[in-house]
Amino acid sequence: VRRLALALVHYPVLDREGELVTTAITNLDVHDMARTARTYGASDFFVVHPVAAQRLLAQRIKDHWTLGSGKRRIPDRAIALELVRVVESLDEAFAALGGRTGPDAIEVWTTAASVRGGAITTYADARGCLADSREGPPVLLLFGTGWGLSPELVANADVRLEPIVGRRATAYNHLSVRAACAITFDRLLG
Amino acid sequence: VRRLALALVHYPVLDREGELVTTAITNLDVHDMARTARTYGASDFFVVHPVAAQRLLAQRIKDHWTLGSGKRRIPDRAIALELVRVVESLDEAFAALGGRTGPDAIEVWTTAASVRGGAITTYADARGCLADSREGPPVLLLFGTGWGLSPELVANADVRLEPIVGRRATAYNHLSVRAACAITFDRLLG
Repeated sequence: VRRLALALVHYPVLDREGELVTTAITNLDVHDMARTARTYGASDFFVVHPVAAQRLLAQRIKDHWTLGSGKRRIPDRAIALELVRVVESLDEAFAALGGRTGPDAIEVWTTAASVRGGAITTYADARGCLADSREGPPVLLLFGTGWGLSPELVANADVRLEPIVGRRATAYNHLSVRAACAITFDRLLG
Repeated sequence: VRRLALALVHYPVLDREGELVTTAITNLDVHDMARTARTYGASDFFVVHPVAAQRLLAQRIKDHWTLGSGKRRIPDRAIALELVRVVESLDEAFAALGGRTGPDAIEVWTTAASVRGGAITTYADARGCLADSREGPPVLLLFGTGWGLSPELVANADVRLEPIVGRRATAYNHLSVRAACAITFDRLLG
């Protein structure tokens, strides 16, 4: 099957005013997204943060649950958190999977709560691209914290997934990144 | 459209050893599930806890975001958290929607990570029951904290939804309740 990894991006992301910012690590993001990733068969969960102290925090969360007392208390959690790879930048995540250029170039797919320019891919089409019978380069699925991924990341993506909208259309569309990640994986691989 | 509410149950739920326990309120459960509920058009989000001090905590979370300084900082969050109704027991939630017996009796639907006895309803069938063209009594969808809803709650439900399983079947099936709630709503109303 085609390799599918995900990245939780803390920089570059937007704040409420649309400014580029760096957000803080949220403990439950790491747990929930690792559990979702493991449930749906993702290969790697990159936690991307440019600040060393924040990377240390993420690494300590991982180590507590995969090596420390957390593992003894809830062994299931270790299986999920083993997917976590703490990296300084998206470039580091790209390189770990094969790079953005050259013969092994990966595809980068973005998720967003609203249409942000560039062609949009439906979940049905994206799901087809990940069918067991289909081959292709590894896919790295990006999730933005704060108010979403930077416009540059979205513009440079190979695939921009459509926003998640419910059938009972409401004006409200503010899912947590933890919920959006779960829904995205279920739509792609559920 | 048919009314759909949800309840986050802190008692009666199971612990890892299968014993009946009461779990603690988790702040991000309240936020994430309220945001998911609002996005998909749910009518009410009952936070069920038998301990008064824990209900007070849940009510303070709601009030902070719907009345207090949280509302000024992130107005969108108020729209979600307005759905929260803090109750002492599931009976109180049942009564608020029309009761479990009589002409206005509601339906209770349960979610679970594994098949736990009793007939199972597929998501496709359940989705059909919530189609805009279908009429029916209100539905209360139950989500268990800890290691899941008590066997008695599951046994007495009108509908037991099938467990959530990914297409790339993995042995791992430990989604957070926040993620399971998001996926369930997307499957029913996405």
